[in-house]
Amino acid sequence: MVFSSRLLEDAVNEFSRLPGIGKKTALRLVLHLIRQEERNVLQFSDTIARLSREIRFCKRCHNISDADQCNICNNRGRKQQLICVVENLRDVIAIESTQQFNGIYHVLGGIISPLDGIGPEHINIDSLVNRAEKEKTEEIIFALNPNIQGDTTIYYISKKLKPLSVKVTAIARGIAFGGELEYADEMTLARSITNRIAVEHYITAS
Amino acid sequence: MVFSSRLLEDAVNEFSRLPGIGKKTALRLVLHLIRQEERNVLQFSDTIARLSREIRFCKRCHNISDADQCNICNNRGRKQQLICVVENLRDVIAIESTQQFNGIYHVLGGIISPLDGIGPEHINIDSLVNRAEKEKTEEIIFALNPNIQGDTTIYYISKKLKPLSVKVTAIARGIAFGGELEYADEMTLARSITNRIAVEHYITAS
Repeated sequence: MVFSSRLLEDAVNEFSRLPGIGKKTALRLVLHLIRQEERNVLQFSDTIARLSREIRFCKRCHNISDADQCNICNNRGRKQQLICVVENLRDVIAIESTQQFNGIYHVLGGIISPLDGIGPEHINIDSLVNRAEKEKTEEIIFALNPNIQGDTTIYYISKKLKPLSVKVTAIARGIAFGGELEYADEMTLARSITNRIAVEHYITAS
Repeated sequence: MVFSSRLLEDAVNEFSRLPGIGKKTALRLVLHLIRQEERNVLQFSDTIARLSREIRFCKRCHNISDADQCNICNNRGRKQQLICVVENLRDVIAIESTQQFNGIYHVLGGIISPLDGIGPEHINIDSLVNRAEKEKTEEIIFALNPNIQGDTTIYYISKKLKPLSVKVTAIARGIAFGGELEYADEMTLARSITNRIAVEHYITAS
C-alpha cells in the first residue's frame, strides 16, 4: 500500500499489528476514526493507554482486575467456598454469561502442555492449592477444555489436592444441546453413555 | 458479557464501536494489548490521538495529508497535468498499488446519488473544475465505480468541463482478467464488445 500521509501509514501499520487485522481492515478502521469526533477518538486513545498502565491481576484468583481483588472475589453474595478453575479470562466471561455459577474463580493462566513446554510450574497451581487450604474451600470445579491437556491438568491438580478435604468435580461432557448423535465423535458419545444421568436430573438441569 | 474489571469493560466497549468488530473480537484485541509491552501500547494510543489532532486534507486534491499539500501532489516527478478523479482515498491507494499511474489525483469525497441525498454540491466538483482551469490540466481520467451513480457523476462533471480544452477519459470496463464470459453480466459484456480494442494494443497493455 502507498499512502499520501505518513501519519495515516503509521496508524494503519499499528492497527495491522493486532491479531486478525490485515492492512485493508486496518485502513477501514483508521478511516472510520478520522471521521469521528475528536473527543471520542481521544477517549479511545486514552482507554488504550490506561490498559497498559492500570490493568492489574486479582491477587486471589489471577483474574484481570482494577484493584488488588477483583469484583467477583469481592462480591460477598457469591459462594466463597466454591471455586471454578479455568484456563483463562475468556472462560470466566463465558461462564459468567450463563448466569448459572454463583461461586468464585481461579484462573490458571494456561494449561499443562509438555509439547508446548508448559509445565505445572508455569501456571497458577501452587496458589490454587494454598488458597484451597487457607480458605477452607468446599468444592473445586474444573472447567477446562475437554482435551488431553485439560485432562492432564485436572489429573495433576487433583492429586495435589488429595491431602485436603475438598470435593473435586469437573464440568459434564456430552452431546452439545442441539447437536446430533450421528455426528458426535466416538469419545464424546462413549463418555456421554458412561456418564449417563437419571432423567429426573436431566429435566431439572435444562 | 460480564467483566471482572471496569477498565477491561470500557476497553472492550471502545473497540466494539469500530466497524466490523463485535464484542468477542474486541475482547481478543484488548487481551492482546494487555500482553504487549507498555511502550508499544502507548505508541499505539499516541498514534490514535494524533489521528484526531493532526490529520489534514490536501488543499489541492482533498486527499489525506500531513501538510497543506499531499506527498503525491508535491512529487514533481509525477505528471502535474494529468488528473485521475476518484471517489475516495481507498481508490487512490488501490490505483497507487498498481504502479501504473504517474499523474496526480482529485478525491471527490463521494459520488452523486440522489437516492442518498448526495447532490453535486456535496462533493468536490467545483474545486476540480477551478483546478483544471487554473492548472491548465491536459487530461482528466475518471476512475469511478462502474454503476449508475458513477456514470451520473462522470456525465455531470464532464459537462462542467466542456468549456475548458481538457481531454476527458474514463477507465476501461470489460471482462476482468481471469473472469469467464459466460458469467459476465450482459451490460459488461455488451460494453466490452462495443469498446473492443485492436489486438496489438491488447498485448502491449497486458
